[in-house]
Amino acid sequence: MSLSVSFAGAGNLAWHLAPVLDNAGYPVREVYSRNPQHAQQLVARLYDGEVKASLDFSTSPSQVFILAVADDAIEQVAREIILPDGALLLHTSGSQPLDKLSYAAASGTGVFYPLQSFTKGVKVDFRQVPVFIEGDSAEVERELMKMAGAISRQVFRLDSEKRLALHLAAVFASNFTNYMLTLAHDATQKHQLDYNWLKPLIAETINKTFQVGPEQSQTGPARRGDFETLDRHMKLLQEDSQVAELYRLISQQLVDRYGEETEE
Amino acid sequence: MSLSVSFAGAGNLAWHLAPVLDNAGYPVREVYSRNPQHAQQLVARLYDGEVKASLDFSTSPSQVFILAVADDAIEQVAREIILPDGALLLHTSGSQPLDKLSYAAASGTGVFYPLQSFTKGVKVDFRQVPVFIEGDSAEVERELMKMAGAISRQVFRLDSEKRLALHLAAVFASNFTNYMLTLAHDATQKHQLDYNWLKPLIAETINKTFQVGPEQSQTGPARRGDFETLDRHMKLLQEDSQVAELYRLISQQLVDRYGEETEE
Repeated sequence: MSLSVSFAGAGNLAWHLAPVLDNAGYPVREVYSRNPQHAQQLVARLYDGEVKASLDFSTSPSQVFILAVADDAIEQVAREIILPDGALLLHTSGSQPLDKLSYAAASGTGVFYPLQSFTKGVKVDFRQVPVFIEGDSAEVERELMKMAGAISRQVFRLDSEKRLALHLAAVFASNFTNYMLTLAHDATQKHQLDYNWLKPLIAETINKTFQVGPEQSQTGPARRGDFETLDRHMKLLQEDSQVAELYRLISQQLVDRYGEETEE
Repeated sequence: MSLSVSFAGAGNLAWHLAPVLDNAGYPVREVYSRNPQHAQQLVARLYDGEVKASLDFSTSPSQVFILAVADDAIEQVAREIILPDGALLLHTSGSQPLDKLSYAAASGTGVFYPLQSFTKGVKVDFRQVPVFIEGDSAEVERELMKMAGAISRQVFRLDSEKRLALHLAAVFASNFTNYMLTLAHDATQKHQLDYNWLKPLIAETINKTFQVGPEQSQTGPARRGDFETLDRHMKLLQEDSQVAELYRLISQQLVDRYGEETEE
C-alpha cells in the first residue's frame, strides 16, 4: 500500500515534485502555502488534493509530509507544523542538515533532495533528476529509496555534510552559470546586438565541458593571458562598476590558474 | 574561380577554420606557425597545403591571408608579414578593430570573426557558427560575405565597435560559464562527489535560459535572499579565499539584482 503525501510550500520545487509523486503512486492530498493562491494553483495540478489553510495536519490522511519551503524557513516550519501519529517528515533542501527537522514531533525524519533547478512552467523530466536521500533510521532510508526510485532513475544516499558540498557545487554549476548568461544578455541588449547569436556558442561551450571536462575546455583571453583584450573589455565596462569588478576578478583567477601554460 | 588561402597561426581557430574553408572551395595552400610542429599537424588536415617557414608570403599562390593568431599578436604579425600583390589580409579576432591591419601592405583588409569557442580535437559544425565580417571596402565585404556564406548559414556584417561588445558578451556566455563549471568540478573533486551528478542540472539550466531567458530562469539561494545558506557555503569555502571572494561577489550582485522581489 502506498503512502499519501502532504506538502508545506507551493514554490518552484513543490510545483514539479508534487504532481510527479501524485502520478507515481504517492497521492498528494494536501498543500499548504503562506500564499493560498499558490497552494490553489498547485492543487489544480493534482488528482485529488486540497488546499490546507494552516500547518495543523493533526487530522491529515497523509503519512509523508514534505517541507518544500525556503531553506531558511525549514526550522521555523518544523517547529510550527502539527503532525499526526506515525508521520514521516522530510525536507528537500541541499544545504540544510537532517537535524533541522529534530524540532518536529515526527516518527521519522528524512531528506529528499532533487538536484535540479526548478522554475514554474518549465517542464522537467524527473526520471533524469538525481535524488539524494538521507533518513534518521535505516527504515526511513528504505522508504525514501523506494519513494525516490518511483520517480527517478538516479537515487543516492548522501549525508548532510556531503549534500551541502554538492549544493555548493550546484550553485556554481547552475545559479552562477545562469548569472553569467544574464550578464551576456545584458551586454547584447546594451549594444543592440542579438542575444540569439550567442546560442550556438553557449550550447557548444556546455557540450565541450561534457566531452573533455571544464578545465580542459577553457578558452578565451584570460586563459591566454591576453591582457590587451582584457583592457579593451574593461574599457567597455567602465560605466558599470559592478560588472567590471566581476570581470576583473574572474579574469584574474583564470590568469592565475592557466598562467603557467602557453597556448598558441 | 575561387580564391586560395594561407594561414598565419595554427591554434584552435585555424585548426577548425582551415579544413572547413579547404572543403568549401577555398583551398588552403600554406600554414605558418611560430611552432612548426603545429603548422605540420594542421597541414596534415588539408588536401594540398604546406608548412611555411616564415611570414614572407611574397611568392605565395594565395590571394587571401588569414591571421589566426592571438589577439595581442595581430599588430606585430601585420607589421612583419610580406604579402604578394593584390592580397586580401584578414584577422579573426572579436576584440581587435579592423584598422589593426592597416600596418600591412595589403590591397584589402577585413575581419572574419566566427563566434565560437574552439578547442583542438573537439568537432564543431561550422554551418551553425555565426560569422561576423567587416571589410575596408564594399568589394572586400562582398568577397567576405561569399566566403563566410560558403561555410556558415549565419553571416552578418558588424563594425569593429559592436564586434568588441559582442566579444565581451561571448566572454561572459562562454569563458566565464566554463569557469563556473570548473569551480563546480573542483568542489565535487574536493568532497569526493561525482561530477556527473551535476550534468542533468547543467543541461537543464542552459535549456531553461533558452526557453525563458537567463534573467527569468535564475534560481538559487542568492536570488531568494537566503542568507543562511549563503553563510553555510561561505564556511565551506573558508580555506579557499579566491573562490570565496568570487562566491561572495556574485551572490551580492544576485541579491542586489533580485532583492526587490519575493519568491516563495
